[in-house]
Order: sequence, then C-alpha cells, then structure tokens
Amino acid sequence: MEVGSGLPRDCVTPIMQRMRAAILAVGTELLGPDRLESNSLLLAQTLRRYGVNLRRKSIVGDVVGDISRELNTLLREVDLVLICGGLGPTADDVTREGVATAVDRELFEDAEQLEVLKRKFARFGMPMADTNLKQAEVIEGARVLPNPRGSAPGMVLEVDGKVLFLFPGVPKELGGLMRSELEPWLEEKTQGEAVETRVLRVACVGESTLEERILSAYEEFGREAISVLASAGEIQVRLTASGQLRERTPRLDSMIQRLRDLIGDSVYSEEPEGSLEKVVGGLLVSRGKTVVTAESCTGGLIAQRLTAVAGSSAYFLGGVVTYADPLKVQLLDVPPAALEQHGAVSPEVVSRMAAGAQKSLGADYALAVSGIAGPGGGTANKPVGLVYVGLAGEGDPRVEELRLPGDRDRVRWMASQWSLDLLRRELLQFDRDSELVLNASEGGVE
Amino acid sequence: MEVGSGLPRDCVTPIMQRMRAAILAVGTELLGPDRLESNSLLLAQTLRRYGVNLRRKSIVGDVVGDISRELNTLLREVDLVLICGGLGPTADDVTREGVATAVDRELFEDAEQLEVLKRKFARFGMPMADTNLKQAEVIEGARVLPNPRGSAPGMVLEVDGKVLFLFPGVPKELGGLMRSELEPWLEEKTQGEAVETRVLRVACVGESTLEERILSAYEEFGREAISVLASAGEIQVRLTASGQLRERTPRLDSMIQRLRDLIGDSVYSEEPEGSLEKVVGGLLVSRGKTVVTAESCTGGLIAQRLTAVAGSSAYFLGGVVTYADPLKVQLLDVPPAALEQHGAVSPEVVSRMAAGAQKSLGADYALAVSGIAGPGGGTANKPVGLVYVGLAGEGDPRVEELRLPGDRDRVRWMASQWSLDLLRRELLQFDRDSELVLNASEGGVE
Repeated sequence: MEVGSGLPRDCVTPIMQRMRAAILAVGTELLGPDRLESNSLLLAQTLRRYGVNLRRKSIVGDVVGDISRELNTLLREVDLVLICGGLGPTADDVTREGVATAVDRELFEDAEQLEVLKRKFARFGMPMADTNLKQAEVIEGARVLPNPRGSAPGMVLEVDGKVLFLFPGVPKELGGLMRSELEPWLEEKTQGEAVETRVLRVACVGESTLEERILSAYEEFGREAISVLASAGEIQVRLTASGQLRERTPRLDSMIQRLRDLIGDSVYSEEPEGSLEKVVGGLLVSRGKTVVTAESCTGGLIAQRLTAVAGSSAYFLGGVVTYADPLKVQLLDVPPAALEQHGAVSPEVVSRMAAGAQKSLGADYALAVSGIAGPGGGTANKPVGLVYVGLAGEGDPRVEELRLPGDRDRVRWMASQWSLDLLRRELLQFDRDSELVLNASEGGVE
Repeated sequence: MEVGSGLPRDCVTPIMQRMRAAILAVGTELLGPDRLESNSLLLAQTLRRYGVNLRRKSIVGDVVGDISRELNTLLREVDLVLICGGLGPTADDVTREGVATAVDRELFEDAEQLEVLKRKFARFGMPMADTNLKQAEVIEGARVLPNPRGSAPGMVLEVDGKVLFLFPGVPKELGGLMRSELEPWLEEKTQGEAVETRVLRVACVGESTLEERILSAYEEFGREAISVLASAGEIQVRLTASGQLRERTPRLDSMIQRLRDLIGDSVYSEEPEGSLEKVVGGLLVSRGKTVVTAESCTGGLIAQRLTAVAGSSAYFLGGVVTYADPLKVQLLDVPPAALEQHGAVSPEVVSRMAAGAQKSLGADYALAVSGIAGPGGGTANKPVGLVYVGLAGEGDPRVEELRLPGDRDRVRWMASQWSLDLLRRELLQFDRDSELVLNASEGGVE
C-alpha cells in the first residue's frame, strides 16, 4: 500500500512526534451501507498540521458497552483520543454514558450548563423538551467546551495523563469546536511548532512534464517537502514546511516563488478551493470582457461551469449547444461545405464555430468545442477522445487538438478544463508557444 | 444520532441475528487527511443483506503490532472479521504478518500459490520481482481465495470458531472476492435466508406529500419494511423483505405493486443507478421524438445532463443558454415587450422561450427555464429560488412556478430535475392536474 498521500510519514514536528492519537467516531448509522464516516478527515488534517501521529480510527454504534470497551483499548495505546458523535438529546445518544463508564466517573447535571441550554432554547423561542436535559450532563472532572453552533457542548478531560476530547458529530459544530478548542490546545502543546501546507493548482499540464520541470526544486527543498497529486486535467502541487511560524513562512514563501518560476503561468491558483471557472471569471471582470460558448461534445458543460459562479452574468452572455450539425450551420454560420469536407470534429469546423459564436452572440471571446466523447462514434482516423477546442478573440481563432484518455465523463470534463484554461491563458497574454510543445503531446498520455 | 438510514436495526434474518461482525481496514494512507476508507460500505451492504450484525469498523496503519493488537481485540468481541488491504507486494504490506502474529500461526510459502503467481506474471510478459514472492505466503491453516483480478490472493481461516477473511484493498479485487467467496459463504451459513432491498425512485414530489400517500402501505407491510430517503429533487423509497427467496420475492413484488399504485407515475425508475436523464432519453427514443433546451438560470445544466447519456445525439438536437436578455430576443424570438413588462423571470417569458426554441431549433419538444438562482438578484416580489420551467410540445407551452429552497447549486439542480421530469410526464401522457395540487406547494418547503 502506498504511504499517506500528501505528506510522508516522517514529516512531523520534533516536539509532537511522540504524541499518539486515535479518533473514535460514534453512530450506528456509520455502520450501515449508506454513510461513510467523514469527520475524521478534518481532524486528521489538524492533527497532521501539528505533527501528531494518528495511529487509528474506530467506528462503533450508539451502544454504551461498545463505546466504553473501545475507549479503554484506545486509552492503553494512545495519548490523545478525539471522540465525535452521540452527544445529541435522543435516547440513542449515549457517548457521555459510554465515556463515563470507561473512565469510571460520574455523570452529573451541570447547573451552569443547564442555564446555557435554557437560554439557547429561549433565544429561539422554542420549548425545551425534557430529553434535552441530558445535554446538560457533564462527566466528573471534565471541562465543558462551549458550542455556539448547536445545543450539545463538547468536553475535554484528562485521565491518567491521557487527554480525551468529546465533540458533537454535526460537521459544522465539530469544525467550530476544533478551531476554538482543539487547535489552541495543540498550539500550546507544540509551543507554536506546526506543519504547514500550501497548494499550487495547475491545469492542463501532464504529470510527467510537471515533474520534469520541478526537478531542481526537489533538489533544492527536498523530496519530502513537495508532493504532486494529479486528477483529470488538474494537478495540485503541495508544499510543506514545519517548525515555528517564523521559520515556516519564509521557507514556504521561497518554495512558492521558486515553483512559480519553474511552472510559470500554468499555475492558475493558490487557493485550495479555487476553481478554474472562478479564476477565469475574475480575469474577465478585471478586464471588462465578455465570453460566450459554442459546444458540441461537452453538451453545455462549459456554460454550466461558467454560470456555476455567482455573479457570472457580468461576463457570461450565453452560449449554444449545437449537437446536431444543422444547428451548427443555423446558429453559428458554419458553412455546410466545411462540415461535409472536414466533418464536425475538425479544426476547421471548431474554428468556424468559435468565430460564428463570437460574431452572432456578440462577445469579446468565444469558446468552441467539438470532439468524440464516446463510447460510440469513434473511427480509425477520429478515435474516441479526439477533441478540438477553439477560442475566438482578437485576430483569427486559435484551435488546439487534444487526444484525451478515459470514459465519456472524463473526456467531457477534460475538454471543458482545457477550454477554460485556453481562455485563461489568452486573458493573461500568456505565451502559449513554448507551453504547447510541453503540453500538447501529453493530453493523451496522462 | 439517527438510527442507520435505509434499514432499521431490528430488520435482520432470524438465523443470522446472532452473528456479530467487524471490519478491519489496513493502510497508513487511510489515516491521512486525504483519503476516506470506503471499501467498508460495500462489505456493510453485503453483511446487511444477509442479516449479519456489523458491530464496528477499525482502521489501522501498515504496522504489524497495530494490526495484530486490533485483531486480537476484535476476535474477543465478534464472530466474523473482514480484513481489507495490505496484501500487496511492497515492504509496507504487512497484513499477512499482522494476522499471523495475532492468531499465533506460521506464514509459509505455498508452492501452489507460487505457481499461480508465476503464471500470472508470465501471462502478462512481466518479470516477477522478488518482492512479489511474499504474495505467495499463506497463513497456516488458511484457505487461499483465488483473485483473478490482481496478484494478491485472499484468505479465509477459522480460529477458535471465529472466521477471518483477508481481502485485498483494491476495490475491484475486493468486490470480486466478495461475490465469489464471501457471499457464497454467507449464503450457506444463512441457508438461503437474506434481507433484500428494492428501490423506487421518485422525482419532484415533496417528502411529506409522499409520506401521506403511502400511509396505507406502512399499515399493510409494516413501518420497518419501507424507508424513505430524500435528497434534492429526488426521493428513494426502499422496500425490504427478509427470509427465503421464495418468501421474499412475492412479498417484494406485492409491495412494489402497491406502492406504484399509491405513488403513481411519479415513480420514474426501479433501477438503483437509474437517472432521470436516462429515463427521459429512453422515452424519447421509443417514441422517436427530439428535444432542445433554452436555459437561463440553469446555465447549460439541463443540456449537460441530457448529453451525459451515451447515444443522446439520437434525440437531443441542441440548446441555447440565454443568460443575457438580448440573446433571449435574438435566439428565441422573445418579444422585448414581454421582457420589459414581465421581466426575464416570469411565466410569460419562459413560455415564449420554450415556444421560440421549439420553433427555431426545430424539435418536437423544448424545455425552457428562467429563475433566480442566487445568492444575489432576489427582490421581495421575485425572491431567490423563484424559478419558472416551461415545456413546448403539442399545443400551447405549459409553465410551472417553483419556489426552491437552498443555495445556488441546489436551486439550479432542482430546476433541472423539475424540467426533466416535466418532459418525462409529458412523454408518458401522465395526467398532471391531480399531481400538481400535491406538488406545486412543496417545492418550497422540502
């Protein structure tokens, strides 16, 4: 099995590498065939950031005995246990009881907590049911963690030098308590040391091309500091540094600078959640330009991605999906002779589609796509995965040929990715010529 | 916490309800922040089908001591342990060693297994590295489970009356072994008894409306036999029966029949993976009809969904995304006066958009949508979530008003769902009038 993606095992801070942690998720629904436990990803991220060694995850149902037995096992093996779920008001919510049993302590109704709970219900004008009373129960010796996002508070307690956190299972509430309680606690324990990761997002470059380009950065910063995660039409380059803030920040800054120099404008974002359509939208807004689309094999996917961004009506005027050839003639003025001579999947037709859309829909830029998404429709000369993307702007339209691997969904997705990136580069006046040599051949071999 | 979605806890077969199981997933990458363990969903599904009581899941890294300690704990608590991952050829793959240590048995190189392995590599013309030799190692007393999809075989062994299965972590290989080995084993243990689930998929009906309609089925078949899972614009009604095949089948058949009678043609599919766009495509093909789209707020999403289906060029001619109002006039012949008087988000304009698309793009049917997807653009009279969907076919276009809850993505998705269902009902000549009363008011309260 591969070692954890993202960060190698040994990349932990000196102070924390001896702290061992476990996550215990509680909830019968997490043992069914429909629901995956996913809170632990968030917790694992935070633990990794502080260099804590996560040893195991366990999932048990809402059963007092199962919770307490598992917790006893964990307390023998690790130093920190993060428990999530089962703190609600219903009879099923027995995590408090399970933990109290495991550590052999009493559960008591906390007067202060009861007041907090009553005030919360009063504020929302809701009557408080008796079942909610159990949410005011606190384990002997535990500190209550205020949860402004919900009715169930968290708790933290120490048992024989081991530390247990109890978090609600609702992701929003868990995330809030993680930030307000767990992170400051870890911050204190690590005395400011942490593992920090930044991301460069790169579109439409092959993984091997990218690896080749950044070789010198591997040598300069070390293999373990840089990791490359590839998915369809997109690569994330993750840069990692550990230590105190004053050491990490300049190191990450210089890594970012160096990698940007090496990769160039193929980097489209440093935002972990930044999408290509958002970046393209931002560039169009800043330049006061508009765009339209003319799609065949992508069937509306590019328009749909552009309009998924709130505020896109400022730069997206509209588009056409010309699946049937007569519509390419009627809506985009593609000459019937071009369709007959070259076929719908050809640079000539895509160039005409882009020019036609730009003119008839009246925008600064027009993106056009035609290709064979599969599974049917391929021939020896024009196989499944052959796609032409075109862009009309100033001057003649430019067209690129792609040979995309994968199934229908993947071909369509990558074609949309490539089209958006074509526009992004045009807007940046990015010199494509040198790029093209590196990229064009790799569409098909990624 | 809610009880397991899908099937209530007590719905288990009489024979198996005493068999307790656990899943142990092995892999250091499953403890990182990027990857969720997901094999267990497949296994949980199978266990539930045979009425086995899944008590817990554990995830540990590729560490011999961690695997063996956890397995020892599990062997004290359950009767059946399903282990996945860590059977590969690299030094990291130590599940075999971990299990052998836990049950205190030897690992030996199995001559027959070695031959199988050599033949596999020879067949693909690949040299076999020495590291692959460990994949021929078998735990004393275990039976080897042939894995034609990969190089790592599975194993099954009995220890003091408890049964352990070892599966590879690659989902395709795990799925294969589950079908070829685990299911027959469970089949034998249960003597043919199983829990079987069938699904009715329902689009664009509110959850409470549906619940009301099927009340009599709850009474007839019991609450635990029917469960309702709602997501955006879609409800799954799951019907469950247990027992021998000869008992289950007629019971499920009569439940399906009864629920179809109660819900009517709002049921669009009995396929667990059936999508509305596939169903609509099938209906269009069988009737030899074509469709086009005219989208505003959905921005191409409906066209994109229709064309996501392979072979959609047989019935989807094309569409327009008219985000800017002048394009509604230019491409769809919407009268400027209608836009001025009623605004782009109005039944009048959507009706004109549908009629215009049908005529100018030349199809049997045209779907049109205009609405306010948000987050901006709402007013007191026309709030975010107000959407009109229209369909032009024979006679005058019909338009429906929706008031959809949720964020931009959800509003757009539900509008596309409603549009596709509008066409489905038209194609079925489904009497909408009685439906409308039940549905229209619920768009906004789901």
